[in-house]
Amino acid sequence: MDILLQILLLLIAAKLFGEILERRGYPSLIGEILAGIVLGPSLLSLVAPNPTLEVFSDIGVVTLLFLSGAEMNPRAFLEKRNIAVSTAIMGVVVPFAGGILLGMLLNLSFPETLFIAIALSITSIGISIRMLIDLKQLNSAVGITIVSAAVLDDIIGVFLLGVLSAVTVQGEVTLNAVLFSVIGGILFLAFFISIGPRILRWFFSLARKTETHEMVYSVAIILALGSAFLSHFAGMHYAIGAFLAGLVLGEGIRRDRMLFDSLMDFGFGFFVTFFFASIGLLFSFSAETLLSPFFLPIIIIAVAAKILGGFLGSIPFISRNEAFLIGIGIVPRAEIALVVARVALIAGLIGVELFSAVTAMVIVTILATPLLMKKGFSVVPTIDKGA
Amino acid sequence: MDILLQILLLLIAAKLFGEILERRGYPSLIGEILAGIVLGPSLLSLVAPNPTLEVFSDIGVVTLLFLSGAEMNPRAFLEKRNIAVSTAIMGVVVPFAGGILLGMLLNLSFPETLFIAIALSITSIGISIRMLIDLKQLNSAVGITIVSAAVLDDIIGVFLLGVLSAVTVQGEVTLNAVLFSVIGGILFLAFFISIGPRILRWFFSLARKTETHEMVYSVAIILALGSAFLSHFAGMHYAIGAFLAGLVLGEGIRRDRMLFDSLMDFGFGFFVTFFFASIGLLFSFSAETLLSPFFLPIIIIAVAAKILGGFLGSIPFISRNEAFLIGIGIVPRAEIALVVARVALIAGLIGVELFSAVTAMVIVTILATPLLMKKGFSVVPTIDKGA
Repeated sequence: MDILLQILLLLIAAKLFGEILERRGYPSLIGEILAGIVLGPSLLSLVAPNPTLEVFSDIGVVTLLFLSGAEMNPRAFLEKRNIAVSTAIMGVVVPFAGGILLGMLLNLSFPETLFIAIALSITSIGISIRMLIDLKQLNSAVGITIVSAAVLDDIIGVFLLGVLSAVTVQGEVTLNAVLFSVIGGILFLAFFISIGPRILRWFFSLARKTETHEMVYSVAIILALGSAFLSHFAGMHYAIGAFLAGLVLGEGIRRDRMLFDSLMDFGFGFFVTFFFASIGLLFSFSAETLLSPFFLPIIIIAVAAKILGGFLGSIPFISRNEAFLIGIGIVPRAEIALVVARVALIAGLIGVELFSAVTAMVIVTILATPLLMKKGFSVVPTIDKGA
Repeated sequence: MDILLQILLLLIAAKLFGEILERRGYPSLIGEILAGIVLGPSLLSLVAPNPTLEVFSDIGVVTLLFLSGAEMNPRAFLEKRNIAVSTAIMGVVVPFAGGILLGMLLNLSFPETLFIAIALSITSIGISIRMLIDLKQLNSAVGITIVSAAVLDDIIGVFLLGVLSAVTVQGEVTLNAVLFSVIGGILFLAFFISIGPRILRWFFSLARKTETHEMVYSVAIILALGSAFLSHFAGMHYAIGAFLAGLVLGEGIRRDRMLFDSLMDFGFGFFVTFFFASIGLLFSFSAETLLSPFFLPIIIIAVAAKILGGFLGSIPFISRNEAFLIGIGIVPRAEIALVVARVALIAGLIGVELFSAVTAMVIVTILATPLLMKKGFSVVPTIDKGA
């Protein structure tokens, strides 16, 4: 079918399902993912993943992370650095160990075990952030910790993915690739700590002096996409660069209410929707999914290990209830786990059974976490005073 | 190269060139088209036409026409119906006759002559509207006449294109296709005159009652794209449906300043840019372009015939100077002429020489008209009191 028509159908279904879920008190992101599942290959087959939708989805995750960065106070973010680092490390180490344990218990091969461990380790920043936005908890102590831990978690993930690709294609070239991605990551972070912010702010202030009416808006989008590419070239997820750019430009954007609202519309009224709907498109259900012997063990370890890791990492700094909430908040896995699974399946590292089980794990964590979080926040009193 | 990177490059170059042109007092659309020419296959070959860019460009022309419709007063539009119909008819008949004459003078075959006549007949609504917006003349008497004539002109174009496709592939099936597109066009217009507006307004008011924060924004985009598809299915250009939807919903959108500005950003700060940049990508220059024996005759007839047609069609209703400006305003040809030329080239109806000459004609009319219009409006006193 016409690609533009697929985009229109996906937008209609996602907004409709999102609204239905929201009216029943659930985060609308669940509805948007369901729209992808319903219209996609698993059910109606009206919409299929394609390069154009991928671009829409990429712009969606870039704007989502950029706007989340812009909404947050960089100082609050820095104040939370200890709890964030500790939560990120424990939030990766425990699930990774859980994956290794699972591989041993299920008698998997070394590559399979490594794959499971990595697929379990990386939290989806996109899902976590959108969940917090839907629950209006992005700027609470719990929210800031979850976001910063998820960001650091993704940076750790770069190294893990480098290791996986070194295993996928054994040889010197890939060891170089690991080294390359490590150096790339360090250079990127060094850039963003040193001159990056000044350069971004300079471009942004330049945009204010132009004749073109919508220039500030266009330049904000250009800087978000440009920073996303920088992190992508450095071997990290697009999202990291966009988030950092948002953090840096946040003050300037928030001060111009009109601009901020207009960018929010651009993101949440259009592109972000395609990120979530595309996740739904990636699922492929079959009888095997539910019959897989790995189905239950993976889900249990996936959920339990992240909660435990997040709890252990944050408990030295925060109340027990909040630490538990943080643990739940880093449970969602999504696009990275799905991409890792696809790569491993194609490389012959894992079989269809394991692939299906990871897919099922992703959907369970995505759909269950927002519900658990909603319950959690209604029990634990938190303060979201904004930035 | 990565599609998303191509999109980023195109956006940067288009905004930069647009700003440079605007600072020198020229309409920024020229800069956006130049960006496409510079980055595209004619020069740097950094960006190539691809399905994703086509979707961006389609959404661009849909938002451009939707927002133009929303900016205009439907009553002013109706008041101008006599001059619009007369201008549209003369604005098609004179260039069509000019094309036939040209074919006879240059000794072209019948299919070639018909092709030239059609390629010369259809004004680019997109270019005309953007030019008027850049010059802040959309709601002047001259502006409204140009827009309404260009819209009607495109509807006449449907029938002409039907004739051309009947010639391209001779046989019964295509005669049915002509009939089909005529019936489709009539049904579409009947829908938009009868229950269309009520349905659109009902959806729009429904969106206001939802829980989702950006719903009105999303629904405006959905209705614009949905109406665009309706006109597309009926055999007309996407733009027609989007324009009519904008006219119908304009009052509701303009009343909500925040929504209107945000949609303007969505259009002019992002998608519309890709429509103009993509036009630049479609050009293919070569030595043959300038050496083509058809080069000068086509350009002269293309410009002279539209000015004459627009002048003759509007002079009974308006001052001589204004009628002359209206004639200039309907000179631009763009995407339809380029698409017609591509179809005819692939079908073997015309050769490369004629194809190149039409391409050159398009670029001359696009680049020259805004400059002529700017001069014209500075001479002729016009009133743009808004809707």
